[in-house]
Amino acid sequence: MKSTKENIFLTIKSLFAIAIIALLTVSCADKASDDYKSITYFNMDANDELVRPTGYRSWVYVGTPVTPNDLNDGKAPFPEMHNVYIDPQSFDHYKKTGKFREGAILVKELVSIGSKTAVSGNGYFAGEFIGLEASVKSKEHFPDEPGNWAIFSFTNPEEGTLKQTAGALPTNMCNACHQANAQDDFVFTQYYPVLRAAKNIGMDVSPEDNAKRMTAAK
Amino acid sequence: MKSTKENIFLTIKSLFAIAIIALLTVSCADKASDDYKSITYFNMDANDELVRPTGYRSWVYVGTPVTPNDLNDGKAPFPEMHNVYIDPQSFDHYKKTGKFREGAILVKELVSIGSKTAVSGNGYFAGEFIGLEASVKSKEHFPDEPGNWAIFSFTNPEEGTLKQTAGALPTNMCNACHQANAQDDFVFTQYYPVLRAAKNIGMDVSPEDNAKRMTAAK
Repeated sequence: MKSTKENIFLTIKSLFAIAIIALLTVSCADKASDDYKSITYFNMDANDELVRPTGYRSWVYVGTPVTPNDLNDGKAPFPEMHNVYIDPQSFDHYKKTGKFREGAILVKELVSIGSKTAVSGNGYFAGEFIGLEASVKSKEHFPDEPGNWAIFSFTNPEEGTLKQTAGALPTNMCNACHQANAQDDFVFTQYYPVLRAAKNIGMDVSPEDNAKRMTAAK
Repeated sequence: MKSTKENIFLTIKSLFAIAIIALLTVSCADKASDDYKSITYFNMDANDELVRPTGYRSWVYVGTPVTPNDLNDGKAPFPEMHNVYIDPQSFDHYKKTGKFREGAILVKELVSIGSKTAVSGNGYFAGEFIGLEASVKSKEHFPDEPGNWAIFSFTNPEEGTLKQTAGALPTNMCNACHQANAQDDFVFTQYYPVLRAAKNIGMDVSPEDNAKRMTAAK
């Protein structure tokens, strides 16, 4: 029979072992669930301006519409290439629910057209970064905006630097057109196969892994 | 003065506390360092074919060259929009060293042009995914290829599905042109500001966070 002292030691050992396992589990699992549940990728400052988003190079790329000047009589409203990203938590949420979540942010990185010809042919090739815009969906912050989306521009061509903060652009300037023409909740998913393929497919599915593709256009 | 029993208890407690801290540190820190050191994002099968890359939607987006048929007399060699991604470890390595590492993989997702006009103007807008290509740099696997880069196509327009594996395309079909015309180690970085901004800037820097941008083209 074990002594009382040995029994106490064994009990303490067991308790500590359980504590270690519990702590390890909590410390690593919590990150994953917190990431999904509550992390947002935007900050509003004290003046209700959006702080310029950062770190979006590791977000999920959505698409690049191109509407160059030379196809629009030299007066394209959006003459740059627009690389659009969505924050990864909102992408997961879109996969899970088919909806843009409260706190979703999309970033539009404006890139000049650097070249219109290359060894691969005539076309449009990215030049340099020239601006940054963002749209944020938040009932908390934008209760009166259609769809609770607000749109911001940090572009500052005169100085060649981005603004550090930006106020929401007037609804009629961007949002009204998104409301009338965008396919899914103010987002032009009709031009974003990345989002169409992900919508409501489930959080653990990666649509790009599927071998199925449309037959190439002839 | 404390009893021997109390001292033993305290020692055991301290040891367990140290063990807990050590375990927590190792369990969470190891993931980060392992990720960087040794993870590769490509697999060659027993027949020396590249297994179709998956999961690239969370890699780093590089750029989208557009060379449509209607700007190339109806015979563009690359009539689709090409969304190019690099695996995240190789992107970090490129930031750290300015070089494409052994094992670097770039994926080129082929997307049809879905529309040539939208409310934002005339241009090119993504349609549907139609193909997938990849280039891999590996001295181990491709010692005789220029720059140790090999290029693969999984596109399979007849069946509308991607191939599960693909052999390296003949050097003259792709690599020779990359060798002659691509700016940095067979990669067309002249059309990829994401890579130019990242090159050699340091692993802990996110170039997109810098406020500096080129002045917008007039």
